[in-house]
Amino acid sequence: MQQPLRAGIIGASGYSGIELTRLILRHGQVQLGFATSDRWVGQTVAAKTGLGSELSYVSVDAGLEAARGCQVVFLATPAESSLELGPKLAAQGVTVVDLAGSFRLKDAALYPPYYRFEHTAPALLAKAVYGLPELFREQVKGARFVANPGCYPTAAALSVAPLLHAGLVDPQSLVINAASGVSGAGRKASEDFGFMEIDGDFRAYRTLKHQHLPEIRQTLSQVAGADVPLVFTPHLLPVKRGILSTAVAKVKKGVTTAQVQQVLADAYGEEPLIGVKSEPDAVRLADVVLTPKCLVGAATDGAHVVSISAIDNLLKGAASQAVQNMNLALGLPETMGLL
Amino acid sequence: MQQPLRAGIIGASGYSGIELTRLILRHGQVQLGFATSDRWVGQTVAAKTGLGSELSYVSVDAGLEAARGCQVVFLATPAESSLELGPKLAAQGVTVVDLAGSFRLKDAALYPPYYRFEHTAPALLAKAVYGLPELFREQVKGARFVANPGCYPTAAALSVAPLLHAGLVDPQSLVINAASGVSGAGRKASEDFGFMEIDGDFRAYRTLKHQHLPEIRQTLSQVAGADVPLVFTPHLLPVKRGILSTAVAKVKKGVTTAQVQQVLADAYGEEPLIGVKSEPDAVRLADVVLTPKCLVGAATDGAHVVSISAIDNLLKGAASQAVQNMNLALGLPETMGLL
Amino acid sequence: MQQPLRAGIIGASGYSGIELTRLILRHGQVQLGFATSDRWVGQTVAAKTGLGSELSYVSVDAGLEAARGCQVVFLATPAESSLELGPKLAAQGVTVVDLAGSFRLKDAALYPPYYRFEHTAPALLAKAVYGLPELFREQVKGARFVANPGCYPTAAALSVAPLLHAGLVDPQSLVINAASGVSGAGRKASEDFGFMEIDGDFRAYRTLKHQHLPEIRQTLSQVAGADVPLVFTPHLLPVKRGILSTAVAKVKKGVTTAQVQQVLADAYGEEPLIGVKSEPDAVRLADVVLTPKCLVGAATDGAHVVSISAIDNLLKGAASQAVQNMNLALGLPETMGLL
Amino acid sequence: MQQPLRAGIIGASGYSGIELTRLILRHGQVQLGFATSDRWVGQTVAAKTGLGSELSYVSVDAGLEAARGCQVVFLATPAESSLELGPKLAAQGVTVVDLAGSFRLKDAALYPPYYRFEHTAPALLAKAVYGLPELFREQVKGARFVANPGCYPTAAALSVAPLLHAGLVDPQSLVINAASGVSGAGRKASEDFGFMEIDGDFRAYRTLKHQHLPEIRQTLSQVAGADVPLVFTPHLLPVKRGILSTAVAKVKKGVTTAQVQQVLADAYGEEPLIGVKSEPDAVRLADVVLTPKCLVGAATDGAHVVSISAIDNLLKGAASQAVQNMNLALGLPETMGLL
Repeated sequence: MQQPLRAGIIGASGYSGIELTRLILRHGQVQLGFATSDRWVGQTVAAKTGLGSELSYVSVDAGLEAARGCQVVFLATPAESSLELGPKLAAQGVTVVDLAGSFRLKDAALYPPYYRFEHTAPALLAKAVYGLPELFREQVKGARFVANPGCYPTAAALSVAPLLHAGLVDPQSLVINAASGVSGAGRKASEDFGFMEIDGDFRAYRTLKHQHLPEIRQTLSQVAGADVPLVFTPHLLPVKRGILSTAVAKVKKGVTTAQVQQVLADAYGEEPLIGVKSEPDAVRLADVVLTPKCLVGAATDGAHVVSISAIDNLLKGAASQAVQNMNLALGLPETMGLL
Repeated sequence: MQQPLRAGIIGASGYSGIELTRLILRHGQVQLGFATSDRWVGQTVAAKTGLGSELSYVSVDAGLEAARGCQVVFLATPAESSLELGPKLAAQGVTVVDLAGSFRLKDAALYPPYYRFEHTAPALLAKAVYGLPELFREQVKGARFVANPGCYPTAAALSVAPLLHAGLVDPQSLVINAASGVSGAGRKASEDFGFMEIDGDFRAYRTLKHQHLPEIRQTLSQVAGADVPLVFTPHLLPVKRGILSTAVAKVKKGVTTAQVQQVLADAYGEEPLIGVKSEPDAVRLADVVLTPKCLVGAATDGAHVVSISAIDNLLKGAASQAVQNMNLALGLPETMGLL
Repeated sequence: MQQPLRAGIIGASGYSGIELTRLILRHGQVQLGFATSDRWVGQTVAAKTGLGSELSYVSVDAGLEAARGCQVVFLATPAESSLELGPKLAAQGVTVVDLAGSFRLKDAALYPPYYRFEHTAPALLAKAVYGLPELFREQVKGARFVANPGCYPTAAALSVAPLLHAGLVDPQSLVINAASGVSGAGRKASEDFGFMEIDGDFRAYRTLKHQHLPEIRQTLSQVAGADVPLVFTPHLLPVKRGILSTAVAKVKKGVTTAQVQQVLADAYGEEPLIGVKSEPDAVRLADVVLTPKCLVGAATDGAHVVSISAIDNLLKGAASQAVQNMNLALGLPETMGLL
Repeated sequence: MQQPLRAGIIGASGYSGIELTRLILRHGQVQLGFATSDRWVGQTVAAKTGLGSELSYVSVDAGLEAARGCQVVFLATPAESSLELGPKLAAQGVTVVDLAGSFRLKDAALYPPYYRFEHTAPALLAKAVYGLPELFREQVKGARFVANPGCYPTAAALSVAPLLHAGLVDPQSLVINAASGVSGAGRKASEDFGFMEIDGDFRAYRTLKHQHLPEIRQTLSQVAGADVPLVFTPHLLPVKRGILSTAVAKVKKGVTTAQVQQVLADAYGEEPLIGVKSEPDAVRLADVVLTPKCLVGAATDGAHVVSISAIDNLLKGAASQAVQNMNLALGLPETMGLL
């Protein structure tokens, strides 16, 4: 019988970290080796997750030590922390899946304007694999350092990548609006995310400046084989979880809805974690929340295409995609522990 | 002392109709002459509005009769009904403010595809004035038949009309996404708008087909002096009231955020019902709900502009704008009864 | 290897019916034999549940026929239907778990005032076992006809049964207030349960007349060995799922919080599906939603006890408790398929 | 013409303070003299309230100075602050309406256990008038120091005071459950009141220990002419505003619903700010939000009475009741500025 693999989690008390901890505890083939949390050191994983576990949360230092006995370590920390911890863990030889943004942008010069720090590990940045399996699966297989995509970039890229790749849409014309539940802001004690501020409200934030903009552009440009200088406007929804992304672009003359839908069907028909709907209006946030899936639907009026996608920002937008990437990196079945 | 004016309301039990009834009851210079409601015939206006009134709801037929004693009648009915009632009331010589969509589109040929009926009163359609005061104030003054704008068209047009008029943006590149609270769907007993379906959800609807699309296009084309073939995607928010509209378009080379904001300030600086914010992110749905105001804010990255606006769909998007139009049509101060 | 058992579900498209279908599809030891739904006849179970299944929904008549190949049938129908279907299925010899209320009240005379029908199957009523396992486990084991408890009665009874049984509280003084999410009203197209009516609202309903009142009284009187003529006031919460029950009663002189908590710990310490919290304030609705568990916490000021419990109304208040009862009735491990 | 009166507000940036500021700005007979806010010093009152005002927020020290030019000062501060400021202002000779709890409980010994401070102004405590006008109107008229009631005590007392006064219910049997919107917790940056914690949740808090318990007991005991040792359990609702209070008590033998309703009608029939509904289920939170009114409805089964009331916690539970008290204290019409 095979020895179970061991996975460690650094940053296990954020919203994504908790989801990830639960997924690992239920995975089957992978055991939880350790979980770090500054706020919960000494408290039991069982109490916080509601699942069976003998472990208690430890400090980051203790986690780094325990990482030596693990095959994979997840970083579910702020970007500044993963920038520092990623190289340390990589040097230890453990496979790393980084849920923060520090190793997603190939152009290190984009970090100061969008993340407000200088990138201090360009060599590792060059080696990191961008873990969006439905677009870059072969690269993720066996990877030693996976940059897990951001939540908006996952939803946005999946909705239009096949259409750009097929040459149906004008890469210069892409406009993406997206809306996220409050968990996207992370766990924090802030009046801004208080019930009194959020309930009944809707607004845009970081217009033209969001750190996910260059990530989406990088992915779509790679897929399109040409620069895709999109506009991306994120909004804050009065719901806990989920992202809905609405992409609009000009299409080549004569393109029909049937063609658009065929391109999506060809791209995603065999994908276990993507569902293609018959029209954009059939993509509903509520249908993906608490699932590891992405739904996509598109239509055209002959001049423009509208392609809408939805994911759970904490799952396909973070934790379940991290497990998907781990499975690919470690040679396990891709959806193990997810369906 | 001046004789008080009398206003009648046909369709007073819909969400907009109730708001309108309350505004008229509090107006000061205008008295409620009658209010019709199929579902509430015989019940008191006081009980349903919480405001002082001696009236009870009557049938439409009784309302048409009572209209003879009124200076103005509001139609807050479905479009099919206003198409039939509008000409009857116009023939009686009373001033009409129509909150339905039947007299908004100058091109009668757009009714079958977008409203699913043939237009049977093209002569009145030609005479009807489109009542968006901040853009077409002079035409509304003294008008005898005002087509009150739709909720989305009000928010969408106000956010970009000055930028199009100033020639800052490319009319061929406009993409508008908007999101509305549930009251926008009107009052109905439907599982689709049940709490179980709406809470926690977000989705687009009538993508590429919404009846407000040609209305926005008509207004903006008139303002721009050129066709503005925009894409419009409405979404359904889990809130009761309010619309937030996010418009994106390409700008002329070299346009700055300061220029964009100056154009808005010039256009709206003196408008009592429009507030210009310093950035798009400062436009919040919650700040306009229960008010007759529109907030607008815009910024550019030198290639695109993002202009965001917000209104209460039942007030500036329906009832309070109808009162604003009535005031202009009857020669009263424009914001009487609104601030 | 053991032949898998087969379970049928009549009424599989209600909120409880869907949850139940999912639980059976994931059960492990029990297979779904058939599922009936008037509204979904011919549609696939996979499409509606998101889980793997080859079945399509069938009519009730087809379900009754298919029931001959099943070991157990669940009734997740309105009470009027289960009153008719229960005896038919019992006559076929299949084990029945009835989620409706038709076989819960031992006194048939209570049906006309509380359920508005005459009870037509008093013989079966006498045989039916009330399936609240934590109170009546031994009777459920091997039972052929289980009346699955109501949602409020489950929450209410579990919060105070041990205290009544231990003689700590005055049975004449019990006051229970409870609040339920909207799913408790069932699936229906009604303006009353529209988002516009529910969001931001809270209210009591069926005060002094709710059909769960005699059910709670029956259970608690049996446990207390004396009549417990409580007052029960249900309220409607603006949430989708969950029930929180707040019970207040006079205590015997000198009773301490430590004693109260000890009684709960003694009663429930070994229960896999009940968690005892250290204080009433620690019982939160959000912690039980989507789980098969009940949380309970109590405290006293020396004169009164306040005991609060919470469940997911669709799971411990309906579907998961039905599976728990099925497991006991069929001789399977009690929590199989639930944890 | 009469000189307008001037009112100052200390603590104008809390939720109640903002509501109060708006009410004063719209009052008609009373002008805003000053408004203090630590967080908003120097910002304009117009920007924060959306209403016309030339004033900017000032510090508390500046406010105390400005109070010399005012006829009335409102304290909308934490209780610790009003305990200190109340005597200072009273010594200046200005009329004070204190929205905090520091001068509500006649028994100073109750402050340490319920408010966690020693009461340092027992002489003023003895003079302070408890400002629940519907119960103690004559005492409020011309009062110089009014203790404005708490939100829960207002709702709870109004629902049962007439029934206790009439001797219909057993004072030893009263159980009150209430639920409040999140604004009741005040404005604070806390994860506990974040959208992620509140949405979808419901729970009790401060069970058996809430500081409003002795206040309700004091009021009802005075009305009943006997001690009313009730149990009070507050809950936290996922809504912004409003309190619903559900009171249950034993009734004298033979009492009918008609009698109960007659007692309420007799007590409140002439009250401009109380509405008596035909049954408890007709009292809905949504109907009182944004209004200065209290709704009450009651029924009995011959053994117990259930009496339900609802108010807006920030208005009848705080700011509008403070204005009602100011009107009575200054000799103005009681509902001036409220309807």
